[in-house]
Amino acid sequence: MSISQKPVSASLTTMTEMVFPNDTNGLNGLMGGRLLYWMDIVAAIAGQKHANSLVVTASVDNVSFSHPIKIGHVVTLRAQVTRAFNTSMEIHIEVKAEDVPNGRIVESHRAFFTMVAVDMQGNKVTVPTAVPETEADQKLFESALRRRQLRLVLAGRLKPEEAHELKSLFNL
Amino acid sequence: MSISQKPVSASLTTMTEMVFPNDTNGLNGLMGGRLLYWMDIVAAIAGQKHANSLVVTASVDNVSFSHPIKIGHVVTLRAQVTRAFNTSMEIHIEVKAEDVPNGRIVESHRAFFTMVAVDMQGNKVTVPTAVPETEADQKLFESALRRRQLRLVLAGRLKPEEAHELKSLFNL
Amino acid sequence: MSISQKPVSASLTTMTEMVFPNDTNGLNGLMGGRLLYWMDIVAAIAGQKHANSLVVTASVDNVSFSHPIKIGHVVTLRAQVTRAFNTSMEIHIEVKAEDVPNGRIVESHRAFFTMVAVDMQGNKVTVPTAVPETEADQKLFESALRRRQLRLVLAGRLKPEEAHELKSLFNL
Amino acid sequence: MSISQKPVSASLTTMTEMVFPNDTNGLNGLMGGRLLYWMDIVAAIAGQKHANSLVVTASVDNVSFSHPIKIGHVVTLRAQVTRAFNTSMEIHIEVKAEDVPNGRIVESHRAFFTMVAVDMQGNKVTVPTAVPETEADQKLFESALRRRQLRLVLAGRLKPEEAHELKSLFNL
Amino acid sequence: MSISQKPVSASLTTMTEMVFPNDTNGLNGLMGGRLLYWMDIVAAIAGQKHANSLVVTASVDNVSFSHPIKIGHVVTLRAQVTRAFNTSMEIHIEVKAEDVPNGRIVESHRAFFTMVAVDMQGNKVTVPTAVPETEADQKLFESALRRRQLRLVLAGRLKPEEAHELKSLFNL
Amino acid sequence: MSISQKPVSASLTTMTEMVFPNDTNGLNGLMGGRLLYWMDIVAAIAGQKHANSLVVTASVDNVSFSHPIKIGHVVTLRAQVTRAFNTSMEIHIEVKAEDVPNGRIVESHRAFFTMVAVDMQGNKVTVPTAVPETEADQKLFESALRRRQLRLVLAGRLKPEEAHELKSLFNL
Repeated sequence: MSISQKPVSASLTTMTEMVFPNDTNGLNGLMGGRLLYWMDIVAAIAGQKHANSLVVTASVDNVSFSHPIKIGHVVTLRAQVTRAFNTSMEIHIEVKAEDVPNGRIVESHRAFFTMVAVDMQGNKVTVPTAVPETEADQKLFESALRRRQLRLVLAGRLKPEEAHELKSLFNL
Repeated sequence: MSISQKPVSASLTTMTEMVFPNDTNGLNGLMGGRLLYWMDIVAAIAGQKHANSLVVTASVDNVSFSHPIKIGHVVTLRAQVTRAFNTSMEIHIEVKAEDVPNGRIVESHRAFFTMVAVDMQGNKVTVPTAVPETEADQKLFESALRRRQLRLVLAGRLKPEEAHELKSLFNL
Repeated sequence: MSISQKPVSASLTTMTEMVFPNDTNGLNGLMGGRLLYWMDIVAAIAGQKHANSLVVTASVDNVSFSHPIKIGHVVTLRAQVTRAFNTSMEIHIEVKAEDVPNGRIVESHRAFFTMVAVDMQGNKVTVPTAVPETEADQKLFESALRRRQLRLVLAGRLKPEEAHELKSLFNL
Repeated sequence: MSISQKPVSASLTTMTEMVFPNDTNGLNGLMGGRLLYWMDIVAAIAGQKHANSLVVTASVDNVSFSHPIKIGHVVTLRAQVTRAFNTSMEIHIEVKAEDVPNGRIVESHRAFFTMVAVDMQGNKVTVPTAVPETEADQKLFESALRRRQLRLVLAGRLKPEEAHELKSLFNL
Repeated sequence: MSISQKPVSASLTTMTEMVFPNDTNGLNGLMGGRLLYWMDIVAAIAGQKHANSLVVTASVDNVSFSHPIKIGHVVTLRAQVTRAFNTSMEIHIEVKAEDVPNGRIVESHRAFFTMVAVDMQGNKVTVPTAVPETEADQKLFESALRRRQLRLVLAGRLKPEEAHELKSLFNL
Repeated sequence: MSISQKPVSASLTTMTEMVFPNDTNGLNGLMGGRLLYWMDIVAAIAGQKHANSLVVTASVDNVSFSHPIKIGHVVTLRAQVTRAFNTSMEIHIEVKAEDVPNGRIVESHRAFFTMVAVDMQGNKVTVPTAVPETEADQKLFESALRRRQLRLVLAGRLKPEEAHELKSLFNL
């Protein structure tokens, strides 16, 4: 018998990377593509911890890149499940970049990845319910439904008029 | 004097990659993170072609991964600007995966990346207007406004009630 | 039953790469070795498309590197089968390098790779005849025989005096 | 003026990596060399945090590899300064490997790296004193002197008979 | 004043690589492209040793791949200058692959790379004359002229009828 | 029946690498971690040659990094078994770095790696006795016992008072 629920903190994963020359573009800044690659790995590990199974990436939500991260900076990615939906989990990723020698925190990004739990044959498997603990967890848990409806609407798998949670975003 | 407008087809970029062992996860399938990395590069090249400047990634929109891409498959990414907004461009990416020896097309993904044009100092620079040509271009051009409002709402930089184009998605 | 002939254009493959720091040598120029690596991948994909089988590299012909390609440049490789010989195919590769922000095409290389079609056990398999279409295709198709004789002579598998096509190069 | 002392916990760095195919040798086990590479990066980040400067690797102490780490495992490296010596710092690294889908912790390694703080010209710079906090920190702090004498003796920079702390290891 | 001549053995360079998963194609065999990449590096080092300057790749001659090299094999590349021509050098590369645990030598390739000596600005610089020592060196030295004429003919920089050395290959 | 003894020179392995941008840290110097990675590969090949089996890394001894190795330098690693102990072998690695264009040898490191011979299932297998040949070999052979006792003491697998060879280091 598998575990039916788990606290979201059980999936917390911290990953630290240093920006090397080949991670940069022509301006010595970290390429968006490299950060997305790291996000996917940390999200996969967090998903594995929650589901205790292999996971595959199902979708990537609006990721925004606000300030440039430079060569030599230390990038810390912190991933945690926000909510589980039958066989999928939404993972919240916070990114912090630091110029350690100068003691300056340079950057802060956020992203949401959705991972699906699968068995060795690639078939979807059920995951435990994710239980929020802190107030911040609770907020992410609640808004996860809205983001999920948005994903389904954009993927054409939910009619906009049936996306009740999402519509509330527009105060309707 | 810079060019004030360009057809969207001027930015068309085709990138072909073969899936090598290190691009895969435990199920011999292409990691989402590697595909995101390739998407970022092809989007950057398409953005450079439109803007004739360096570009940096500003945001990544809902990317969904529907079918697994396997080791040895040939992945073709086709990127083109859909619409330009002052200093930023939305890039549409279509992904096709092929098991060439067996002549089977395995997969089809779509994603939208937003790239910002910058000069050598990293300051934003104005880009030409992007002019749609085909009917498909025209559709992507029109819906680009809706996606942009969605990004701004999600980033907290536009009030939902002011996102007129976006609201039309919900038939309001 | 397998297809007995295919137009050369069926194998056309376009690959686009951006030159990253680790692709360069001490002069910030693209290493010859990295370009050869990309050429091999694009040649393999073109060969797979023609043969609809796995392929392995059999030989690499005189590749010349005339102008330096620099970091940040966009390299476009265009590969197409020129002629098929029982189990092998000659692939023609054209390389173009572009400094996109400055709208300057920097470089143009050419190379010929020979790929052999193999099955999953590594045994050679017959490939379809390659049918040239344009005038340029026709020229490459004809000269392919000469290049093949040159390869066989250099490999000691054909006596120079029997290389009739090749001798015609010297107007004899 | 620079900070004259810092708690060892200020340097704590956690790095998480997933074992990919190219990190493995012929037995699908993580190569020792890849783990050493990761250890060096996490040690460098911990050293940077303590010294608030760039750092370079000065020496690597007896690292032992007891159980094989396999492809797909999640490797967590936890690094912290144990003691500072004028311009150098000893960093203690604990390595844990996990087969997450099966919820099994597979492995535990330890290593000591010595990093030297340097400025942009590569000249050595003084680092703050490292203050142990917990009982475990205190033990590592004390034994650091012994390990340092061992390194100096092995490097021929200290006469064995003058290595007083080290000799105590042999109960003399 | 620079050295006016050097024995070919002064440039001898031995490079050893192990075939890792990501160096392979779908048949667990070493990709031709990876071998070409290694060949280019070992040729560059041999060229640097002869010229005592930076070098860039000028051309790659008929490289043939006869037997598959497998994952885990140890590949040894041995490069040496055969002859110098004003600012360029021809480098001969011998490749041996070994299945070390089974004590079996699996493979033997040969290739010729031409490297050009350049200064920090990328301008060509004169290289010392290369003096053959052994009988094998002497043979490679003599045939180098023929291969050079072949390269020039194929590049359209020498009329076939003027390639006297090359014509002798056809016993004319 | 397997070979019962082998000269240490049978395991001699020479590996040559060029320092590329991604091998460097913020000061354009070779990262310690990359050198450790190369050391592990060259040690594994030398161990395979002695044991004629697969090998895994068991421990890494005091490696010290004295002078910085810079981007573009050619690094030569020379590895040879010093002594065999039932199923393990100690490998001595000498590292030389050269700025070839300027004809300057920049650096010299030494390290000892211990590799264990294993079969395809990962079980330890016996290795031939290693027979020293030169005077230098003999010295390394003798001191290997002392280093082995040090490793066992540090790993808590040998009581310091029983490490007779090691104690002799302190002239007791």
